Amino acid sequence: MRVDVLTIFPEMFEGVFGTSILGKAQNKGIVTLKATNFRDYADNKHSMVDDTPYGGGGGMVLKPEPIFNAVESILSTSDMDASESHSSEIKDEAAHVHQPARIILMCPQGETFTQKKAEELAQEDHLIFICGHYEGYDERIREHLVTDELSIGDYVLTGGEIPAMTVIDSVVRLLPGVLGNATSAMTDSFSTGLLEYPHYTRPAEFRGHKVPDMLLSGHHANVAAWRRKEALRRTWKRRPDMLDQIELTSKDMRWLDEIRREEDRGTDH
Amino acid sequence: MRVDVLTIFPEMFEGVFGTSILGKAQNKGIVTLKATNFRDYADNKHSMVDDTPYGGGGGMVLKPEPIFNAVESILSTSDMDASESHSSEIKDEAAHVHQPARIILMCPQGETFTQKKAEELAQEDHLIFICGHYEGYDERIREHLVTDELSIGDYVLTGGEIPAMTVIDSVVRLLPGVLGNATSAMTDSFSTGLLEYPHYTRPAEFRGHKVPDMLLSGHHANVAAWRRKEALRRTWKRRPDMLDQIELTSKDMRWLDEIRREEDRGTDH
Repeated sequence: MRVDVLTIFPEMFEGVFGTSILGKAQNKGIVTLKATNFRDYADNKHSMVDDTPYGGGGGMVLKPEPIFNAVESILSTSDMDASESHSSEIKDEAAHVHQPARIILMCPQGETFTQKKAEELAQEDHLIFICGHYEGYDERIREHLVTDELSIGDYVLTGGEIPAMTVIDSVVRLLPGVLGNATSAMTDSFSTGLLEYPHYTRPAEFRGHKVPDMLLSGHHANVAAWRRKEALRRTWKRRPDMLDQIELTSKDMRWLDEIRREEDRGTDH
Repeated sequence: MRVDVLTIFPEMFEGVFGTSILGKAQNKGIVTLKATNFRDYADNKHSMVDDTPYGGGGGMVLKPEPIFNAVESILSTSDMDASESHSSEIKDEAAHVHQPARIILMCPQGETFTQKKAEELAQEDHLIFICGHYEGYDERIREHLVTDELSIGDYVLTGGEIPAMTVIDSVVRLLPGVLGNATSAMTDSFSTGLLEYPHYTRPAEFRGHKVPDMLLSGHHANVAAWRRKEALRRTWKRRPDMLDQIELTSKDMRWLDEIRREEDRGTDH
């Protein structure tokens, strides 16, 4: 997969792209991550990327040309890459057809990003992220360039850079070969449909706080049952909306009844 | 405000903490941002920060000691800072009372972060973020150390680092003096309760796509009305749930009726 990010602050991405899972995925050749300064694509002599809004009011608006130019430049290199990696038979076709890149605008007005969207984007060959920075976007970027508008949540940030990192991290970890066995074995919230059960590791007693006896018992079936019930408890207490989204077994339903009675009695968990 | 982040990948934060609004807020002395490697606080000879889970299963679990030790070390420096900056009269008190730091665990099981939470955290003097990285947390960290558990949305990431950046960016931009007039004047989504109206800047025509005539008219009242109606339209089309959260004027209600009729007729906006 190829991932391009358009930003006027490419240096924000250095630490994130070079570290941990994203750094390893690049070293393995599974993904290419590149941040491009779209100021380099402004065709005015002061390299202006924004201007005042038509109709007045405060704030600045990102101009359409630098963004259109930068995206087109990236798509043309991507066409060349495609030509090189394909047989000469389809070269002509590749030279004339745009790569089916997803061009993603990070903005508060966008569709709320979810795990389902991450799984969808993980199927693509090329993602291009456009990050504004405390400005608005000229509406023509929205209407005539981008394929997706995404928001990571209902809060205000100073730019699209951290949201783009969020989407990239969640997508790249899904690519085959990126997570090793040790890490992918960890049960994910949102993929089981329940929040995770409580985890404990050594020491068995830390400052007087003990690990539940059940987990030290070595009885695998009882441990599995305890974990399922505690995952149900946590989900019921914190995110009851998630319980409506999954199919519960009759055993789950009995546990939920027990949990309700236990919590009414004020059992401490 | 003082912000500490506990992570085993402090280098991920360099670009983000040094750039743009966060970099400027630090230069102005409004906030101090520091990433600390909690591996330095492991008291075992191999500097282990995680271990296998009690009860078996895959994955690793963050051990309690390095996190408790790192938080306590940070709180003790914070007490000293407080003693220095206060008069000697309250020195004794400051030396004995923990600073009221918010200790925030970034995790998928946490409360969903919102703009309201950002405003609440912006009132604090000291935030400490704990970032796990594709591991679980020993439950005793949750039960006996942290004051808040936050999630930035319903998607799976490889660690808490990017979520911590998200929360820090949204909080710091709210601190007095951080945003200049030019930037803060931009109407925020979520603070007006509606999505933003479309923005346009020069050129008036770009590749055949024109700016709406209304915005070029110079008639301020008509521009304001157009913008309100288009903000209502975008919110109605993309996030109708937001319309239930705000008080609409009778004019807003008439516009929404018009919008419904226009959209039924397939007016292109």
